Amino acid sequence: MTPVVPPVVAVARKLFDPVLREAVARLDPITARVTGYHFGWTEDSGGSAPAGGKALRPALVLLSARAAGGDAERCAPAAVAVELVHAFSLLHDDIMDGDRMRRHRPAAWTVFGPSEAILAGDALLALAGELLVERGAGGYLDAARSLSLAVRGLIAGQGMDLEFERRDDVGLDECLRMSARKTGDLLSCACSIGAMTAGGTAETVEALAAFGAEAGLAFQLADDLLGIWGSPEATGKPVRSDLRARKKSLPIVAALTSGGAAGERLARLLAQPEPLSEDDLWEAARLVDEAGGRAWAETEAKHRLDTAGRHLAHAGMPSDVREEFLDIARFITTRDH
Amino acid sequence: MTPVVPPVVAVARKLFDPVLREAVARLDPITARVTGYHFGWTEDSGGSAPAGGKALRPALVLLSARAAGGDAERCAPAAVAVELVHAFSLLHDDIMDGDRMRRHRPAAWTVFGPSEAILAGDALLALAGELLVERGAGGYLDAARSLSLAVRGLIAGQGMDLEFERRDDVGLDECLRMSARKTGDLLSCACSIGAMTAGGTAETVEALAAFGAEAGLAFQLADDLLGIWGSPEATGKPVRSDLRARKKSLPIVAALTSGGAAGERLARLLAQPEPLSEDDLWEAARLVDEAGGRAWAETEAKHRLDTAGRHLAHAGMPSDVREEFLDIARFITTRDH
Repeated sequence: MTPVVPPVVAVARKLFDPVLREAVARLDPITARVTGYHFGWTEDSGGSAPAGGKALRPALVLLSARAAGGDAERCAPAAVAVELVHAFSLLHDDIMDGDRMRRHRPAAWTVFGPSEAILAGDALLALAGELLVERGAGGYLDAARSLSLAVRGLIAGQGMDLEFERRDDVGLDECLRMSARKTGDLLSCACSIGAMTAGGTAETVEALAAFGAEAGLAFQLADDLLGIWGSPEATGKPVRSDLRARKKSLPIVAALTSGGAAGERLARLLAQPEPLSEDDLWEAARLVDEAGGRAWAETEAKHRLDTAGRHLAHAGMPSDVREEFLDIARFITTRDH
Repeated sequence: MTPVVPPVVAVARKLFDPVLREAVARLDPITARVTGYHFGWTEDSGGSAPAGGKALRPALVLLSARAAGGDAERCAPAAVAVELVHAFSLLHDDIMDGDRMRRHRPAAWTVFGPSEAILAGDALLALAGELLVERGAGGYLDAARSLSLAVRGLIAGQGMDLEFERRDDVGLDECLRMSARKTGDLLSCACSIGAMTAGGTAETVEALAAFGAEAGLAFQLADDLLGIWGSPEATGKPVRSDLRARKKSLPIVAALTSGGAAGERLARLLAQPEPLSEDDLWEAARLVDEAGGRAWAETEAKHRLDTAGRHLAHAGMPSDVREEFLDIARFITTRDH
């Protein structure tokens, strides 16, 4: 059964898409063109345009604002800023990781060139900050501070990820720390920044940030499982893409550090100098499973979701907002793309 | 005669270097390491560490603050933020332009890898914003706004520059517009952002920004002349590096669009598919001169400096600050590196 995307995601997309497009329209023609392609607004030379990203983060910003009594209009710059930072990180990460596919289409750097994609990422990172600082002091300044810390975190996480690619002794703890920075920090910001623009209390903001950090890890665990067992039709990436790229994703590291025979066989397989054949990839996925990497990741994701839910209980908010937050959290770990 | 670096440059370096190092110390180990190399703080694997950059921009920020009655302590976050943005743009531009040398040493991306240099640039861009938004509202918020507009400008300029590389019909006007964005916008920000942190009047800020925009173009013209006729010992780049890379720099475009026989011969030479020999490069430089590109750039730089000086006269400030601004402006066009 395909899990249902929570309705608030479509609501957020409808509310914020015009604001996002208006912001991107400020950019110079080259970076605007790359960005339009990345968001799926234009076909360009890269193939047909799908629905674009999931817009989960803007939905979280909207809920975060509503949790503190705010509304869509007031939190719109923050929702768009978070989405711009997310897009910046995808544009640059795809270059760094050599990923050629993104959302069923060739990644932007393969269509426009690495230089143009670097520049577009730069433009989006700067634009995100611009949207918040132009609004004035108070909640928007808090939001700008929160977002810049989140950006520092995701860059630190990507740095760890780059370093991991060169090592064969990555531990599970450091891999979790990497994911907490690379994915958790921006999710945590998305879940709390809306409340900042609405002037929410420090308690609400902190509880929402803690919820987002745990939900972010659950999100990454689910993403890593999809990177091995997701169907290419749903994920828009090649089958077993993380194994193909020999990424040090969480289930893989859990298997490699499991201490059993399956983990050792997996390590030998991934260490072979030749490219991995389709049979190798199939075998590697089986070994991750046999070594307990899959079960560990599934259990860990559930555990993170439970912890997230407990944090949410400490943030005072209308019960319908809480339910919608939990809907998104559940969707994050059951999605197939 | 080697032109003397104005004393305020060394003063600014001494004042702001500890603040810059403290800010960079916030970064994760990987981006901090690339940044330390870029600034010449560490030898790393890239050869001996020279004095680093010229720190012209922090000196301009300091003067800008003093023009409005401010001091070094108050403007320090802005001085460091501007320097970080400059470093971000150098790190990324060197990758995009394929430039392998920077300040007498291998460019950071050739030492640490493109991914690491992309990430370090990202980190510096984000850190620049962070330093300003963490300080609070008022002058620092104005400064943050000004800096994000400058960043948008320099990205737009770099985008035009990338596009120019693929065209053989670049006009002198659009080339000037490109330089105004790529170099002028950040110089304009450097010359006015200090006054913002000091609560300077709108008139002072605007006059300083206009001064900086013109001085920035003079700076770029001087830089472009050095890119053809600068000595490698002084510039730290290969001799005639801009011709070697067939860049559409201002003197080159002026020569190409001069309408005479020398310009046409230059166009044919630069259009040849083979790499340019040392003889070709010598001949190309001679043709830029013969076609009037060198004289045009020298005259234009003087003209821009005069205009800059007139803008400065409209910004009320202590006469010693004005003199120091003019010292820097003169240094910009007479420097040999």
